[in-house]
Amino acid sequence: MDSTNSSFEHRLRDNAGKVEAILSQLLADACLSGEITRPTRLLEAMRHGVLNGGKRLRPFLVMETAALLGGNDDAALRIGAALECVHCYSLVHDDLPAMDDDDLRRGQPTVHIAFDYATAILAGDSLLTYAFDIIAAPETDLPSNRKIELVLALSRAAGIGGMAGGQTLDLAAEKEAPDERGITMLQAMKTGALIRFACEAGAIIAGASAENRQRLRTFGEKIGLAFQLADDLLDLTADAATMGKATGKDAGRGKGTLVALHGQAWAETTLARLVTEAAELLSPYGEKATLLIETARFVASRRS
Amino acid sequence: MDSTNSSFEHRLRDNAGKVEAILSQLLADACLSGEITRPTRLLEAMRHGVLNGGKRLRPFLVMETAALLGGNDDAALRIGAALECVHCYSLVHDDLPAMDDDDLRRGQPTVHIAFDYATAILAGDSLLTYAFDIIAAPETDLPSNRKIELVLALSRAAGIGGMAGGQTLDLAAEKEAPDERGITMLQAMKTGALIRFACEAGAIIAGASAENRQRLRTFGEKIGLAFQLADDLLDLTADAATMGKATGKDAGRGKGTLVALHGQAWAETTLARLVTEAAELLSPYGEKATLLIETARFVASRRS
Repeated sequence: MDSTNSSFEHRLRDNAGKVEAILSQLLADACLSGEITRPTRLLEAMRHGVLNGGKRLRPFLVMETAALLGGNDDAALRIGAALECVHCYSLVHDDLPAMDDDDLRRGQPTVHIAFDYATAILAGDSLLTYAFDIIAAPETDLPSNRKIELVLALSRAAGIGGMAGGQTLDLAAEKEAPDERGITMLQAMKTGALIRFACEAGAIIAGASAENRQRLRTFGEKIGLAFQLADDLLDLTADAATMGKATGKDAGRGKGTLVALHGQAWAETTLARLVTEAAELLSPYGEKATLLIETARFVASRRS
Repeated sequence: MDSTNSSFEHRLRDNAGKVEAILSQLLADACLSGEITRPTRLLEAMRHGVLNGGKRLRPFLVMETAALLGGNDDAALRIGAALECVHCYSLVHDDLPAMDDDDLRRGQPTVHIAFDYATAILAGDSLLTYAFDIIAAPETDLPSNRKIELVLALSRAAGIGGMAGGQTLDLAAEKEAPDERGITMLQAMKTGALIRFACEAGAIIAGASAENRQRLRTFGEKIGLAFQLADDLLDLTADAATMGKATGKDAGRGKGTLVALHGQAWAETTLARLVTEAAELLSPYGEKATLLIETARFVASRRS
C-alpha cells in the first residue's frame, strides 16, 4: 500500500512536470505571428495565472483515462493542458475583487495583485479562449470529430450549465443558503463538471464506445464528489485550527457544505463509499485501472 | 443607388431580426437539462448583454459571405450567432469599471449596472464559452473538419493575438501613446480580427478553396479597417459636437487614432480607397457580390 502510494505520487509529480512544460511552451508560442504586436503584459499575466506549480490533477485524469482506453498520449497531454487553461482562467476570475477577492494563491500574489484588475480579466478571458485554440490546433493529433466532441463537452462543462453557472449559484448562496439538493447541484456544476470532463475526455480522445465513455463519465462524477467533500473537510479543519473550535459547524467557510450539514463522520463514510464505487466502476478494466483507482483514493484522502 | 441602399438596409434589418431570434432561442435553450439548477440570474445577464437590438453586422457578414460561396444558410446563421456572442462578451467585459467603466450601452444600463460586477464578469465568460458550444453542437449542420476550422479561427481572432490582445494594447496606449504602426496593429487586433473572421467564416462554412478563403479574409481586413476609420470619424464628430470644436484633433477620444494623426480628409480618401479595393477583391464573383460590396460601402459611410 505504501509503495503503491509512493509510486502513485511519483507518477502524479512526474505528470505535473510534463504539464507544466507543455503549458510553458504553449504560452510562449501563443502569439509568435509576425503580423501583430505581442501583448507582452497579457502573456505574462497568463503565465502567472497558469505556471504556479499546481498538482495538475485534471490533466492527470485526462492522461490516465486516455491511457486506460488506448488514447494517444501526446494528444491527451495537449487536451490536459487546454483543460488546465480553463481551470486556471476560473481561478484568475474567481480571485477578482468583485468575486472572492483573494490576494494570494499558493502563496503568490493573485493575477490582479501582481498585474492589475483589467489585465486579470483579460488574462482569464484569453486563457479560456486559448483552451479552444489548443484543442483545435493541427498540432493536436486527433480526428476532427473527436476534437469537436471535446470542444462541445468542455464548453458545456465550463459554461452556463457547468462551472460558470455553478459559480453564479455559489455567489447567490452567500445571500440565501441553498438546501441539500441545491448544495449538491451547485457543487456538481462549480467543481464537479470540469473533473467529470477530465475523465470523459480520456474516453473521447481514445475514441471509446458510448458505454466506456459513460463509465468514465460516471467515474469522473465520483471523483468530483470526493474532491469537493475532501475540500469541505479541509476547510473545516482549517477553521477548527484557526478558530480554536472542535467543529466548524457554524464557521463562516463551512456553511453551505454537505459536511456542515451532516458532519465529519458522515463525510468520511461517504468518501470511503465513493472510492469503493469508483473502483467498482473500473473493475472491467482489471489491473490497467489500478492507477486511476489510486487517484480516486488520493483525491478522497488528500489533506492539503 | 438609393434603391440599392434601401434594399441593402432592408436586408441588413431583416437579417438582424433573424439573428436576434436565434440568439434569443439559443439563450433560452442554454441549459434546459434537468440535471442542474438553472442559473437564472446569469442567463438573464447574458440575455441583457446580447439581446440589445444591435445591427448584427458581424453575423450579416458571415451569412452573406457564406451565401456568396454556396454555404449552408442555417449553419451560417448559427455561426453568426456564435460570433455575436463573442462580440457581446467583449462589450460586457470592456464596459466593466476596471476597463472602460461605461454605465450605458445603446441607451440601456450595461450588464454590471443592471446586474452586478461579478455577474457581468461571469456573463461575459459564459457568452464566450457558449460561442464554442454553438459551433460544436450537433444542431450546427457542418462537417467536423469545418467546425474545427471555425473553432480555431474564432479562438485566434478573439484571443491573445486578436481581440483580447488588442484590448490589452489599447489599455496600455492610454499611458503611452503608440506610433502609427502601433495604432494600426492595435486596431487590427482589437476590432479588425473579429470582422475578418466574420468574412473568413463564410468561406469555411462553404468549404471554399484556399484561394477563395484568402480572398474573403482580405476582404474582411478591408472592412475591418473601414469600420475602424468610420468609428474614429464618428468619435471626432461627436467630440466636435460636444466640445464645440471644429476638429477633434486634440480631443481626448480622438487621440491615438489614425484620423487624429492624418486628419479627416485623409480618412475620407482612405475610406473611399478601401471600398474600391474591397469591390475589386470581389469582382471575380460578379453580380453575386453586389450585396457584400454594398456592405463595404455602408460600413465606410455609416455615420451612426
